Amino acid sequence: MRLARIAHAGGVAFASIEGEGGDAEALEIAEHPFGRPNFTGKRWPLADVRLLAPILPTKVIAVGRNYAAHAAEFGNEVPSSPMIFLKPSTSVIGPNAAIKLPAASERVDFEGELAVVIGQQPLRNVPASRALSAVLGYTVANDVSARDLQRADGQWGRAKGFDTFCPLGPWIETSLDPSDLALRTEVDGEVKQDSRTSLLIHKVPELIEFISGVMTLLPGDVILTGTPAGVGPISAGQQVSITVEGIGTLTNPAQPA
Amino acid sequence: MRLARIAHAGGVAFASIEGEGGDAEALEIAEHPFGRPNFTGKRWPLADVRLLAPILPTKVIAVGRNYAAHAAEFGNEVPSSPMIFLKPSTSVIGPNAAIKLPAASERVDFEGELAVVIGQQPLRNVPASRALSAVLGYTVANDVSARDLQRADGQWGRAKGFDTFCPLGPWIETSLDPSDLALRTEVDGEVKQDSRTSLLIHKVPELIEFISGVMTLLPGDVILTGTPAGVGPISAGQQVSITVEGIGTLTNPAQPA
Repeated sequence: MRLARIAHAGGVAFASIEGEGGDAEALEIAEHPFGRPNFTGKRWPLADVRLLAPILPTKVIAVGRNYAAHAAEFGNEVPSSPMIFLKPSTSVIGPNAAIKLPAASERVDFEGELAVVIGQQPLRNVPASRALSAVLGYTVANDVSARDLQRADGQWGRAKGFDTFCPLGPWIETSLDPSDLALRTEVDGEVKQDSRTSLLIHKVPELIEFISGVMTLLPGDVILTGTPAGVGPISAGQQVSITVEGIGTLTNPAQPA
Repeated sequence: MRLARIAHAGGVAFASIEGEGGDAEALEIAEHPFGRPNFTGKRWPLADVRLLAPILPTKVIAVGRNYAAHAAEFGNEVPSSPMIFLKPSTSVIGPNAAIKLPAASERVDFEGELAVVIGQQPLRNVPASRALSAVLGYTVANDVSARDLQRADGQWGRAKGFDTFCPLGPWIETSLDPSDLALRTEVDGEVKQDSRTSLLIHKVPELIEFISGVMTLLPGDVILTGTPAGVGPISAGQQVSITVEGIGTLTNPAQPA
């Protein structure tokens, strides 16, 4: 199922997106999408609603240097255990919302990533063997990063924490094997990142075991699994599109803050 | 006013703590404590309720190396702009709750800090001159840190993000000038940190301007302003007590996870 959050004429709701292309429809879900969703019976053509960030997480945990070729492009070693950091929930935006380029930075980079959305049970100390069954589904993320501030600050709370620096979407695919998916990032149609999740150093089950051994993961929390090689800057007026096989494409324009 | 969150026989509520010592009482507040609180008329002796974390923030923003003597004790330079990082909301605990020492770390340190709690208006780009009027009040925090993991990981998401690693309390003092308050940390009664908030490099109004220029601060969000010199380890069975002048004392025992 493709779980989305939508704005329609009457308000905001979770929805299931069914069908393809011009025939796609949004079927409204009552309350929340965890477990077996209840449908209200209302439906709209997808073109008549606006997709929002598919979930509003209490926290976003991101993983650094989790593709060897990306670690190498900045001259970094691959860490032996996952290097985790947090992005604030206020950085989350949905598809087609603008990434606002802060005046404080002279270089803001895209980072295309597979994102994991936690399911309805809080997770603490979950072994890798049971981790995938605790996942609601998978979406696409852009770990937008002010590269100059990231280097200057040491800690990444500012460089990766600006409002709009965590685009998520277009929806959450609930039936997916995350182990070998193509991941491609394009800026204005030019391919910049082209990799596969099979190249993740610390894979999704291991990441869930590691992170849930540190902090309790709550329903809807999001893990950004890391970005492959090919990151680069985005400028005002450009569009970034990140596609993960089996999920879809997350597109966001960039504009000055 | 001293704003607390309490567990009483009938549930959980915000409360105002009035009076001192054995005469202190908790006066129940209806709904939330922002703006002018409404009182339900219910009250209990303070000894008959349990103090919880005084607020459940959507995010906790912490500031590194914000006292020169603390930066120096680890051989670090003082950063020219505030170095910010995030602690997950799941790390928050209240007074007297146990700090759980994770098996993954061989050295867990206390870090006593003044904490700022954001008031009822979301903040974005607030100038320092107007910052203090946007504050709900001030409480005491312990930025518990797994020092060995902090050094090993580079990013501090793990080392400072374990469940129980953000004790807050005992309450939020709403009428306080934060500019020159004594801050003292004791472990089992022995003084370890003894400083004043006048030694903060980046002071509270400047921190609010800086952080709100990066990310939207939501009602109840918490800023940890940094720790002075004297940090050190805590062991299972020990008690850490942090006192900030004009607020009170936050005490937490440590035990194995």
